[in-house]
Amino acid sequence: MDAYQCVRTLRSVRSFRPEALSREAIERILQAGRWSGSSKNTQPWQFVVVQDRARLEALSRCGAYAGHLAGAACGIVVVGEPGAGGLDLGRCAQNLMLVAWNEGIGSCIASLHDEGTARDILGGVPADHGVRTAISFGYPAPPDDLIQGRPRTSVLPRLGRRPLGELVHWEQWTARA
Amino acid sequence: MDAYQCVRTLRSVRSFRPEALSREAIERILQAGRWSGSSKNTQPWQFVVVQDRARLEALSRCGAYAGHLAGAACGIVVVGEPGAGGLDLGRCAQNLMLVAWNEGIGSCIASLHDEGTARDILGGVPADHGVRTAISFGYPAPPDDLIQGRPRTSVLPRLGRRPLGELVHWEQWTARA
Repeated sequence: MDAYQCVRTLRSVRSFRPEALSREAIERILQAGRWSGSSKNTQPWQFVVVQDRARLEALSRCGAYAGHLAGAACGIVVVGEPGAGGLDLGRCAQNLMLVAWNEGIGSCIASLHDEGTARDILGGVPADHGVRTAISFGYPAPPDDLIQGRPRTSVLPRLGRRPLGELVHWEQWTARA
Repeated sequence: MDAYQCVRTLRSVRSFRPEALSREAIERILQAGRWSGSSKNTQPWQFVVVQDRARLEALSRCGAYAGHLAGAACGIVVVGEPGAGGLDLGRCAQNLMLVAWNEGIGSCIASLHDEGTARDILGGVPADHGVRTAISFGYPAPPDDLIQGRPRTSVLPRLGRRPLGELVHWEQWTARA
């Protein structure tokens, strides 16, 4: 898929078909994370790939809106090494999600608010490594209109994207398009 | 360009040819930022597009490694609204850079350590909005092997990317591929 089209059409997918992802597909996704740019090329990430159903279910209970992990074909926890900045981890996460989407694999980020429990579930990630961000992956299944069993509009403050006119300033903060 | 290829080949470009970017190209890049996913779809970003040479030069003095902004065809400051998380801003930045790269436009992130001065240069961005991240854009010019006039190896702790075997764990932190 053309990169512009891939960026344009990527959306959060929280319901997945039961098919497993091939090892090859998972490795393409991981390569996309590995290739990410980062501040001073520090590459401050590691990845824990989870396919075991019980482990996915346990992780899904570590965040208020992480329920979609329970039904994912695969979850990837983006582990932040000590000092990792959110900006770098976000660039990496976007790479993972776009390359998955490029071959029809949907994804959604889950914030793991209970990082202590998540570290234990993952077999002892060191306490100085962040495990705040996990991403569900899998082939999309309809319907995809509930979040934690609730209507999307009761969880999300808005649907769709803000118009460019609300976002863009030319040269000066006070200047709109 | 195929999205996988785009993700794989994206690299930081710090030297630019003098050609301006078309308004259409800049707007495609901005659309890519606008489309980014974010926590609860909050879309906590705005963009200041800078093409004025004096303003780019002033911004380039706001960060220790921001010098490349001085020669960019266009800089986009990714403004974080109050409460914006780094992860969301990083996803947005990656979208901007990938869609630019998809049409041959190089880019590099600059950290603006002196956000107070940057807010002034941009005509009064409110103090509760972050202006930490600016991105240079332009058509790549060789050579591109110096950073702030210094050899890359004297600035970057490493070149290239870490191998997957250093990054990936299967199911458990202790399990390598």
